[in-house]
Amino acid sequence: MTDVLARLHEVLEARKHADPESSYVASLHAKGLNKILEKVGEESVETLLAAKDAEVSGDHTDLIYETADLWFHSLVMLSHLGESHEAVLAELARRFDLSGLEEKASRST
Amino acid sequence: MTDVLARLHEVLEARKHADPESSYVASLHAKGLNKILEKVGEESVETLLAAKDAEVSGDHTDLIYETADLWFHSLVMLSHLGESHEAVLAELARRFDLSGLEEKASRST
Amino acid sequence: MTDVLARLHEVLEARKHADPESSYVASLHAKGLNKILEKVGEESVETLLAAKDAEVSGDHTDLIYETADLWFHSLVMLSHLGESHEAVLAELARRFDLSGLEEKASRST
Amino acid sequence: MTDVLARLHEVLEARKHADPESSYVASLHAKGLNKILEKVGEESVETLLAAKDAEVSGDHTDLIYETADLWFHSLVMLSHLGESHEAVLAELARRFDLSGLEEKASRST
Repeated sequence: MTDVLARLHEVLEARKHADPESSYVASLHAKGLNKILEKVGEESVETLLAAKDAEVSGDHTDLIYETADLWFHSLVMLSHLGESHEAVLAELARRFDLSGLEEKASRST
Repeated sequence: MTDVLARLHEVLEARKHADPESSYVASLHAKGLNKILEKVGEESVETLLAAKDAEVSGDHTDLIYETADLWFHSLVMLSHLGESHEAVLAELARRFDLSGLEEKASRST
Repeated sequence: MTDVLARLHEVLEARKHADPESSYVASLHAKGLNKILEKVGEESVETLLAAKDAEVSGDHTDLIYETADLWFHSLVMLSHLGESHEAVLAELARRFDLSGLEEKASRST
Repeated sequence: MTDVLARLHEVLEARKHADPESSYVASLHAKGLNKILEKVGEESVETLLAAKDAEVSGDHTDLIYETADLWFHSLVMLSHLGESHEAVLAELARRFDLSGLEEKASRST
């Protein structure tokens, strides 16, 4: 499971310069940053609504689906600006002091 | 780097029932879902503004910081509702057919 | 200019139960609160992006257009829940002590 | 009720250059556009959450309060960029053909 973000990163970079007619990711890049940010905003609203509904219904299907949409579009945003999930995970690791010996070992490979 | 979300998950679960006076995560859970969703919404807006500024200035510091805040609070939201990053990553893997042989192998360990 | 919200309110109420096939407002009500709130959220993101662009370009066209969209969809939200602009304006008047003698006079007509 | 936006506009303009130490509006202008847009985004999220809760509880108190906050901060945003409610209402009037004879008469005064 742990490599999903790394492999998704490869997919996103490969599709970045694909044909906008056939690739959703390429079409987002072609439309530009505002369109990508509109999608991040939309998915964040849909995540909030799904969370409110999940609390009442106990059904988490939409919550997971919308959170995946939110993360996905935030990865496209990072890619559009020349960044990736790695910088974000490094920031989270720094904050929570998650970079122990094991982490350092895995980095050195 | 790849285990940051898994280790962050452990931290979030450990702090879920900590003293709200001393733990920010515990204080969010104590205040309830609306407070957590307000934070997800706030961080998503701050991410959009940071992305707009990054496009003009070329400085990505705030972009990474705010995206980390957005992901962090979405992880607290998932935790509050009894979910975790794993369900979201599984959904992303399913969509992009990222669950190849290597993925299956890593899951079996 | 001052009666635009009042007359828009009449239009919104008249279209509330119109044919969803021919009326955008009716189609929003038919789809339900979540759809309406998604639109409020979308328009609020588009307003933020338009404001950021307006600050750089000096062109306010999109800013006004998107703010109108945001107010419009928040009016549909209020209508969907059985409220109107009047309760919101009354709250604003209360906060800023805007309900002077002239206001009281205009209310009594 | 109809003049609340016009009188609120006067209050907002008067406070625009007030002492940021004593005026909330002045403090928002002093902090700049990003801070104002963060508030617009926050209040829009709080409005969505209040609408979801209102639908379940039937209590509209928070809904009205948060919508007032949203409109208020969008008015501060317009003021910060040199615009006002009038341009937004004119856009809404244009869209819905609300500018009848009475409207034209009131504009000519």
